[in-house]
Amino acid sequence: MSGKRVVIIGAVALGPKAACRLKRLDPGAEVLMVDQDRYISYGGCGIPYFISGDVSDIRELMSTSFHMERTPQFFEDAKGVRVLVRTRATQIDRQKKVVRVRNLDSGAEDELPYDKLVIATGSRPNRLPIPGIDLPGVVSISDLHSAEAVKESIAAGRVDRAAIIGAGAIGCEMAEALSDLWGIETAVIEAENEVLPGILDRSLARMVRAHMEEKGIAIHLGRKVGRIESADGGGLELDMGGETLRADLVITAVGVRPNSELAREAGLLVSPRGGIVVNRRLETSDPDIYAGGDCIEVQHLVTGKPVHFPQGSLANRQGRVIGTNLAGGAARFEGTVGSFSIKIFDLAVASAGITAQAALQSGFDAQPAMVVQADRAHFYPTQDLVFLQLTVDRKTRRVLGAQAVGKNGDAVVGRINAIAAVLPFRATVEDLSNMEIAYSPPFASALDVVNAAGNNAENILDGLNRTMEPSEFEERFLKGRAKDAVCLDVRGPANAAPFVKHFGDRWCNIPQETLRNRLADLPEDCDLLVVCNSGVRSYEALRQLSEAGITRATNVQGGIAVLKKSGMLETDEQEQPQ
Amino acid sequence: MSGKRVVIIGAVALGPKAACRLKRLDPGAEVLMVDQDRYISYGGCGIPYFISGDVSDIRELMSTSFHMERTPQFFEDAKGVRVLVRTRATQIDRQKKVVRVRNLDSGAEDELPYDKLVIATGSRPNRLPIPGIDLPGVVSISDLHSAEAVKESIAAGRVDRAAIIGAGAIGCEMAEALSDLWGIETAVIEAENEVLPGILDRSLARMVRAHMEEKGIAIHLGRKVGRIESADGGGLELDMGGETLRADLVITAVGVRPNSELAREAGLLVSPRGGIVVNRRLETSDPDIYAGGDCIEVQHLVTGKPVHFPQGSLANRQGRVIGTNLAGGAARFEGTVGSFSIKIFDLAVASAGITAQAALQSGFDAQPAMVVQADRAHFYPTQDLVFLQLTVDRKTRRVLGAQAVGKNGDAVVGRINAIAAVLPFRATVEDLSNMEIAYSPPFASALDVVNAAGNNAENILDGLNRTMEPSEFEERFLKGRAKDAVCLDVRGPANAAPFVKHFGDRWCNIPQETLRNRLADLPEDCDLLVVCNSGVRSYEALRQLSEAGITRATNVQGGIAVLKKSGMLETDEQEQPQ
Repeated sequence: MSGKRVVIIGAVALGPKAACRLKRLDPGAEVLMVDQDRYISYGGCGIPYFISGDVSDIRELMSTSFHMERTPQFFEDAKGVRVLVRTRATQIDRQKKVVRVRNLDSGAEDELPYDKLVIATGSRPNRLPIPGIDLPGVVSISDLHSAEAVKESIAAGRVDRAAIIGAGAIGCEMAEALSDLWGIETAVIEAENEVLPGILDRSLARMVRAHMEEKGIAIHLGRKVGRIESADGGGLELDMGGETLRADLVITAVGVRPNSELAREAGLLVSPRGGIVVNRRLETSDPDIYAGGDCIEVQHLVTGKPVHFPQGSLANRQGRVIGTNLAGGAARFEGTVGSFSIKIFDLAVASAGITAQAALQSGFDAQPAMVVQADRAHFYPTQDLVFLQLTVDRKTRRVLGAQAVGKNGDAVVGRINAIAAVLPFRATVEDLSNMEIAYSPPFASALDVVNAAGNNAENILDGLNRTMEPSEFEERFLKGRAKDAVCLDVRGPANAAPFVKHFGDRWCNIPQETLRNRLADLPEDCDLLVVCNSGVRSYEALRQLSEAGITRATNVQGGIAVLKKSGMLETDEQEQPQ
Repeated sequence: MSGKRVVIIGAVALGPKAACRLKRLDPGAEVLMVDQDRYISYGGCGIPYFISGDVSDIRELMSTSFHMERTPQFFEDAKGVRVLVRTRATQIDRQKKVVRVRNLDSGAEDELPYDKLVIATGSRPNRLPIPGIDLPGVVSISDLHSAEAVKESIAAGRVDRAAIIGAGAIGCEMAEALSDLWGIETAVIEAENEVLPGILDRSLARMVRAHMEEKGIAIHLGRKVGRIESADGGGLELDMGGETLRADLVITAVGVRPNSELAREAGLLVSPRGGIVVNRRLETSDPDIYAGGDCIEVQHLVTGKPVHFPQGSLANRQGRVIGTNLAGGAARFEGTVGSFSIKIFDLAVASAGITAQAALQSGFDAQPAMVVQADRAHFYPTQDLVFLQLTVDRKTRRVLGAQAVGKNGDAVVGRINAIAAVLPFRATVEDLSNMEIAYSPPFASALDVVNAAGNNAENILDGLNRTMEPSEFEERFLKGRAKDAVCLDVRGPANAAPFVKHFGDRWCNIPQETLRNRLADLPEDCDLLVVCNSGVRSYEALRQLSEAGITRATNVQGGIAVLKKSGMLETDEQEQPQ
């Protein structure tokens, strides 16, 4: 029964969690949460599903798992936590230990004294610095109000065409939400060269893009919107450096930034990137003030560097840490490995750690290693492919990241979760080779895709498997039409036939099991780009070529499965089952 | 190009893996595999799916993922590995470094010289020492021949009733295989008091049993078959200590034991439990002889003790280790955490580490900690419950094991895989509280069930959550009808009403959010067994009671969800959605 006064600024994810945890540990604490909104304690990550209609009532996003709405009254009754809504914190006076607040309805101002303060002010969408960004119909869906407004205009039939600026997680989720259930003609514009930049490396990102395009989303990559204007006859016109795009609704989704002004003005340490700086107890530079959730920076456990990673999951876990520490405990939040998942139409995408591209930029001697394998025993009647790429460090053999794409979402995300779980322990490729995935035919292969990924990475690092990335194959073979490289297809003739027909001399088919006896049939004076369906038989072939002293061969990672899934390779013929 | 001669005894899982890995690393090695069967390199774990008909052709179990049958010719052509089938190894002469073999068709004997030898002799079913075990119609389905024979007799309509002795993994899988697609009236007899003994603790095992019973399987627990006889009028009669059971087919599934006689006769070290003893390089006590797969013992990474854990997944990973070491490498197999999964009708069961019961027996200060939570955000339209129980050590806070049951198999197994992944790192409950499960509403809650499990275990270990196991609640309240205990139901009135009606005074309903103001309504002079749907609101209630100085309350782990799912609690009324 401490009687200590705790004020929490922000009542969405971290705030309520910290408040309730504290009250369970120290029922005598006086806990007061303030929020400028009237909607509190909602699952903002559910907004795309509210827009799509999967979640029909916005109150579901504000309810407990046992269907009670988390209103101020609920917090008061069930948790003993007071909440002031429509109340904006305007200043933190650390000397007087008060928070100044203003009621947004009455304008009344007040001072809330605190012994301990929690800053849970979250983040806000980045604003594109372009003309027209304030026009009606241009929104960034960052809260329930904007979500309600957008859904209302959609439901009223006022949106036939939509443009989404930014192909990150929210942009991709919104593309599905608008297109799949509402049938809105949707375009996505992304300044980078692939969708989900920073989350996926190129090969997997292309698979996602190909899938979105199949679903009818128009994707404009490497393009920036320079200006938005009201169009003649209604709607909006987006200028993408000459080319224009019409839309009734424009959603900007170009990232978020921490709401750290209040902290900065109070003299708390804020990083150059805008995140409030905290230690592992989530104390700010003032030990009486904690901060957590989207407004802080945390340590990335792979790179060791500070990172802003706004996720409801981190906010919840940090909230518990703060609640414990407010009650006198010593809980720690060590950092993040960046675990991520998203559903985009029928595909699941998941990742943890860092991409190969990011790893190279961070100074690692990074190597990507991709496998394609069924999520179940190959003889089990139902199964789907998992496309799994590791980023590994050549020097230390450490696993720096993993990313996966596939149709069976729980299987895809489950594999990434298992890898994410060991990243804080600085796992090596050998740890993945030996990871004990629970085996039975309905749920895994005897040698699971995670193990296969580890083995493959080992083989690459040990120089046994000399590989080429699919995009390199595309550049050199598919686009380059180089004469000095022939594709050696080691699958059965039925699989290879349409490719041989299409590529002629440049596509040589020698099934792997016949290779040792047919070395004389290999084309001469050229590099051999070895492919099979997944990269496994081609690895076997590579070893046999190596045995025969033939070192001009390279294995195309992920094989035909990746080339097709990413849309790099299309043949007119329907492929025979192998 | 070493030219070293390697002989491998056994060509099912480990043998082929070791052989092929070796050939990829050292193409010059001469590799010869011998097997007494004519079927080789098959997925024995697929047998239940062949019996059920999910896998229609037995050759699928012997095929690669690219649908080539793994015949001796395939190994010769694709892998450069020679295979002798129908060839039994009769003796290992370590002085002469030869394996004596006999061809089972011709009777011809031969000596195979080796530089390095691999013993991959697998395991065989335990044989029940009871009269009648050799009668026609009594089988243990341990290889493809017996699987074919059983399926043939089922397909011919000769099996109306089946009895399965043993409710372990294979017994449960076979029960589904016989009953679900063939409609065979199936009984399972188990000497222990629950199904899946040693794999699940009692609460979760009861859920599995309840599900099997719902599916029409008759389960006889704590019963032993003393004798099997031919019945008058055909079929078999099983005597279970007085009670008899009729069946056309009896399948015994009472565990397996290592085939280690050959090793023992050669003077190699074999454990008292029959497993060949190996070090972490998988060398036997003779450094020129490796062993792996079902015939060896490995270290359990939680208990530190040797264990026989026959799994195709371990065999495959050990095969690779042996292949690497045969080629001069230094790969290691560190041991097992006992990851396990099984599908039983519509339920998935997965586990890793050890049960609470086993932990207590091993001398740990073991505490079970159960949570029940949806596999997705609670507002996401499709979701299933995951029932997840941890076993944790009070002293060290180490996670000793995890077990889970649920309908969405990939989600259930994925969670266990993530926990299994950190068991070798001696993870604590705090590691689970902070585990970074990839969050998005279609795939996880913001605070995932794994995190909730860690938090719950923390709360129990810290004395914040005083819990009672569901089976204790059953004994004391449901069966005991004790007058000194009242169930305090803190859910809404609609949920509680049928229970109040059924139990009268013994069931007191005070919703959690009203509790602080209704302390006067609590029944006096009795223990309070607090329940909600899952154990979460009841924990909140417990904290509030504690605040009010009421210490006679205990939280029933897993709440009504577990009591119902396990069949402990049935009410006639249909429960209202809360």
